[in-house]
Amino acid sequence: MRYLLIYDITHDGTRTKVADACLDYGLARIQYSAFLGELSATHQRELLLKIKQRAGTHGLNVHLFPLDEKAWEKRQVIDRKEPGTDE
Amino acid sequence: MRYLLIYDITHDGTRTKVADACLDYGLARIQYSAFLGELSATHQRELLLKIKQRAGTHGLNVHLFPLDEKAWEKRQVIDRKEPGTDE
Repeated sequence: MRYLLIYDITHDGTRTKVADACLDYGLARIQYSAFLGELSATHQRELLLKIKQRAGTHGLNVHLFPLDEKAWEKRQVIDRKEPGTDE
Repeated sequence: MRYLLIYDITHDGTRTKVADACLDYGLARIQYSAFLGELSATHQRELLLKIKQRAGTHGLNVHLFPLDEKAWEKRQVIDRKEPGTDE
């Protein structure tokens, strides 16, 4: 199943560790604090466990949403670069 | 239908205007760059149009995902405050 993971994390080190965990599990970074990709039920559980472990005592807010084919096909995207930048 | 809207916006003024547009349409802010709530098909189209208008020529990356009941029930959340802060 495809999943969307979004987070708000204040502590810089924790944010990096959580981003790395998402990348380790094959999620793609679609925005600064948003990752998207296929996860098995086992990998989904493992990822959330790893995120909690890597965060240690630091605060974090993480949401993980399953996106089925219908939701995926009905998603909408606006993507415009800031003039004069590569971002 | 419930929708999740996430954005990456570099320009501060644009980010504020887009956040206000989401709040105007009754979405709740669940994270710094993420909003969630019910939208009719008409309001969903209007919101995206308003976001494009308010962004003017500035760059932005916005994703809007529909979340049906099944996705909503299977979402997972980790929410821990940073020690020593109210955040």
